[in-house]
Amino acid sequence: MLSIDFFIRILSLSFFHPSFVLILLPFLYVQGYESTTSEFLWSSLYAGIVCFFWLLGYLSLKSRNGWKNAKINWDDEIVVVTGGSGGIGGLLAETLAIRNVTVIILDIKPPENEHDNMEYFKCDVSNYEEVQRVGKEIIDEFGNPTILVNNAAIVRGKTILEGSVRDITDTINTNLLSSFWTTKVFLPDMIENNHGHIVTVASSIGFSGLPQLADYCASKAALISFHESLRYELDTRYNAKKVRTTLLCPGEIDTGLFDGVEFPFPFITPRLAPLDVVKPIITALDKNEGQIIFKPYFVYLMPLLRFLPSFIQDLVHKLSGANNGMKTWRGKQGVSKKYQ
Amino acid sequence: MLSIDFFIRILSLSFFHPSFVLILLPFLYVQGYESTTSEFLWSSLYAGIVCFFWLLGYLSLKSRNGWKNAKINWDDEIVVVTGGSGGIGGLLAETLAIRNVTVIILDIKPPENEHDNMEYFKCDVSNYEEVQRVGKEIIDEFGNPTILVNNAAIVRGKTILEGSVRDITDTINTNLLSSFWTTKVFLPDMIENNHGHIVTVASSIGFSGLPQLADYCASKAALISFHESLRYELDTRYNAKKVRTTLLCPGEIDTGLFDGVEFPFPFITPRLAPLDVVKPIITALDKNEGQIIFKPYFVYLMPLLRFLPSFIQDLVHKLSGANNGMKTWRGKQGVSKKYQ
Repeated sequence: MLSIDFFIRILSLSFFHPSFVLILLPFLYVQGYESTTSEFLWSSLYAGIVCFFWLLGYLSLKSRNGWKNAKINWDDEIVVVTGGSGGIGGLLAETLAIRNVTVIILDIKPPENEHDNMEYFKCDVSNYEEVQRVGKEIIDEFGNPTILVNNAAIVRGKTILEGSVRDITDTINTNLLSSFWTTKVFLPDMIENNHGHIVTVASSIGFSGLPQLADYCASKAALISFHESLRYELDTRYNAKKVRTTLLCPGEIDTGLFDGVEFPFPFITPRLAPLDVVKPIITALDKNEGQIIFKPYFVYLMPLLRFLPSFIQDLVHKLSGANNGMKTWRGKQGVSKKYQ
Repeated sequence: MLSIDFFIRILSLSFFHPSFVLILLPFLYVQGYESTTSEFLWSSLYAGIVCFFWLLGYLSLKSRNGWKNAKINWDDEIVVVTGGSGGIGGLLAETLAIRNVTVIILDIKPPENEHDNMEYFKCDVSNYEEVQRVGKEIIDEFGNPTILVNNAAIVRGKTILEGSVRDITDTINTNLLSSFWTTKVFLPDMIENNHGHIVTVASSIGFSGLPQLADYCASKAALISFHESLRYELDTRYNAKKVRTTLLCPGEIDTGLFDGVEFPFPFITPRLAPLDVVKPIITALDKNEGQIIFKPYFVYLMPLLRFLPSFIQDLVHKLSGANNGMKTWRGKQGVSKKYQ
């Protein structure tokens, strides 16, 4: 569907791309515009602003990766994807497996399709003992995983009062604590080799609490924080800058998890296809670069929300339909026997 | 200790206070400055900016409270404070008890001092069954609590790899899930009477993950989100606008919880005295106004961090000493038998 993201993408590859604006100045000069003409000065300002923002992005990427490039050889990589039997995790696992990468899925139900390079381990990642046991099996059989995608997540869609104790603890344990458990099991070897990549799948609504999603939003807010703590621990406690960390904060994705939820302005907050988020994850893995991936573009503005006066936050919630989106939620059908 | 907060406070009560700037314009006029003089125009701009920001704060406060004032009579209030045997919770409980307010403390150890109006219930708030059982006892004996201060919190101060599974689950359960449990037990009656106040004690570092605090920061990030979800559920699901919600995000407080932590710029990030945060909580309760309390002033900038390019986030972490603060941490001595 056509959305603002399409136009931003076009602009970022044309009028707002450094190579375009840097050609502009010599072009004007050749056309006979002196460097003191107002046309030339305005164009310089425009070029300066575009290059400034491009530089901010470049510096961020480089500093987050310790100013060190590190190529990967996919033949040596072993990828673990939690919740890899469906949704984003499923598409990511299949895409990698088709590319002949060794992929190991941890999920409570088996994946729909089979691939030569794809192994499935039944594992409730919310339970540390299970993760530890399965982790040991994986290491014994395949060697130490080098890429860990913490993607498993469930949605209960109930208010704080309606949600059962089980609903709330399952959500926090599956969405949040599982990342602690898998990290405890697979990170030590990555640190030892100063090589690895941990991808945290959080959410745009990790930046703001919503009705019927108190536990879900809380778990995703906590995951954003977890990603940051992990990055700073790797940098300052283990000096393991080549263990990369990527944070993904997607808006609504068409995986069934949020079926029935409608927002009034799909032009600004479009529903993503699973491939829209799987592609940037694979790019980050391919380049072996820790990245912060916000999709669609509106997510870049989400962190700003809590900086604004609360009545503007409330207004944004009201206008965006965020407070009512879950009223029509039907949830994911058949996603998990355990949680039905 | 003298800090930037002192000067901001003075300015906010003088040069940046609306009553000051609104006197300024008539004063200038009387002094003979025509309304077209540059002095008058600049002063108008200055007055306009000050009033604009003051208006933002006023509108936020009013809209968060459903544009409805609601006085409270302290004789009818029953206050529950989790973790009320020490730290901020302890000071809050004692201060209210001295003011003849009925205060009930839920904690795993008894309070140091006794008061006629202060009752202690031994309760591990991380455990729903205990909260439910103790909650029933409280309601039977005293009636339904009208004010709930979710304050209980522990710090383990270990990296993700060093922290035991018990460390991490204790932190998440005590700091985060306890708020779900107490809310489930005490909120229904508040909604029924459309009267009550739930105070969430989060933290400035709920806005950013730190080394050795992955679980703690995650729990506090999740609490900020919880507060928002709760507010929007009360507004849009229960139409209970007179059930107030207050969020507190303090910096480091001198309660022993973060003993040994040193920051290089105490002028900007001063250590708070417990009274510095207890006073605004009591003001919010007194006025019966849901508020967002950020203390010290630097916390107002914390939400901005995640909006900035990540290399600036990293730079702020480096310059502020945030990444190394916990290296000298000694923790709280004797805070809790269970957790020693």
